[in-house]
Amino acid sequence: MNKLNNIRIVLCQTSHPGNIGSAARAMKTMGLSRLHLIKPRKFPHAEAVAMASGATDVLENAQIFDTLDDALAGCALVIGLTARQRELSHAAISPRAAAAEALAIAADLEVALVFGGETSGLSNEELIRCQRLAHIPANPDYSSLNLAAAVQVLAYELRVASEEAPQAGGKRLQPATHDEVEGFYIHLEQTLIAIGFLDPALPKRLMLRLRRLFTRAGLQKEEVNILRGILKSIAEK
Amino acid sequence: MNKLNNIRIVLCQTSHPGNIGSAARAMKTMGLSRLHLIKPRKFPHAEAVAMASGATDVLENAQIFDTLDDALAGCALVIGLTARQRELSHAAISPRAAAAEALAIAADLEVALVFGGETSGLSNEELIRCQRLAHIPANPDYSSLNLAAAVQVLAYELRVASEEAPQAGGKRLQPATHDEVEGFYIHLEQTLIAIGFLDPALPKRLMLRLRRLFTRAGLQKEEVNILRGILKSIAEK
Repeated sequence: MNKLNNIRIVLCQTSHPGNIGSAARAMKTMGLSRLHLIKPRKFPHAEAVAMASGATDVLENAQIFDTLDDALAGCALVIGLTARQRELSHAAISPRAAAAEALAIAADLEVALVFGGETSGLSNEELIRCQRLAHIPANPDYSSLNLAAAVQVLAYELRVASEEAPQAGGKRLQPATHDEVEGFYIHLEQTLIAIGFLDPALPKRLMLRLRRLFTRAGLQKEEVNILRGILKSIAEK
Repeated sequence: MNKLNNIRIVLCQTSHPGNIGSAARAMKTMGLSRLHLIKPRKFPHAEAVAMASGATDVLENAQIFDTLDDALAGCALVIGLTARQRELSHAAISPRAAAAEALAIAADLEVALVFGGETSGLSNEELIRCQRLAHIPANPDYSSLNLAAAVQVLAYELRVASEEAPQAGGKRLQPATHDEVEGFYIHLEQTLIAIGFLDPALPKRLMLRLRRLFTRAGLQKEEVNILRGILKSIAEK
């Protein structure tokens, strides 16, 4: 479970110390321990301790920074959480996708998940430091998750993803790269044309359906190799 | 999104009114609105209103009951949340599986998700009224989720599942049945033998790998038809 140790939760300009405590509790229940705070309005604070319940160690070990850049030092991947539609312009990903990506990177490198202040979320200056934006699906009429609740959802997805990932000592499964997956789709399409299942003159709805299926599964390197091996055998038949 | 209207959140013997308010907020952010309370210690209460933020309508419409049986009236499926290992004896399911099952039933019938009190969770008497138990994966050294955080996780999974489900008016996607999926695996195995990719004398690790891939994706009826159509075309090549 040590990949979770390479993931830090960064809270920017938190107003209410109770939310910091609740976030610490949410983190610890899911196995996260590294809390970075940027200019919290009140911290340390008794309300933070009260809401942290048994997670006061996370609060005690929290690091406080003046700038987001300082808090992100050493990170290979920075994911910012956003609730607002206007920020979704550069295609926010789901918490599940964010967790998968975070864990893949956290096998070797450091990752940060960045949460904005309670009132206005991440500022534009903070947002431009994030390589990815993630968005928690919500009721369009009332999308205002509490800060600690948002941390809980992301921490939960990280936990689920870490438990699904291969255990240490087990076989190392590696996600296929974008290029490998695209290479497979080209090979698949050529094969479907060769066996007469796909008519190249017709629209590509079939390929879209197949892409959707394999995207849901999330292909691994070894699986792409198996699938392309099958395609090769079909051609040689 | 109206399936969510057939799902009620039932909180048993909640001690802290603030948790009821936070749970109401968690529900509303995810599109849930029906809150049932069994003997709350303090309710209505100013702390509940304060924590509910903009979700006071959920509190105002909350129904209060003396017994769990009364709160479950009309439910076709009752899922209880448990944090404790000893209750896992009859195989607790994940929040994701619970959400999928709840939504499938909620298409036509009423569903309840039942949460115990803050200190000791669901009593044995409450547990026996649940057809399913669900367990939120957690840090084994500190698995004490706040009540509202647990509601948030389940409500989030319900939201994600409801957004993945087919939209009204859109094309209805149906999961393939067990028999259809097994039929596909048999057909796939025969084809792999026919094209010389699988040696029937060797162990079936290859089929296990392929099963794992398709299980992760969760095959739909239409996808099984496409895949079997491809296998048929290979045979006819």
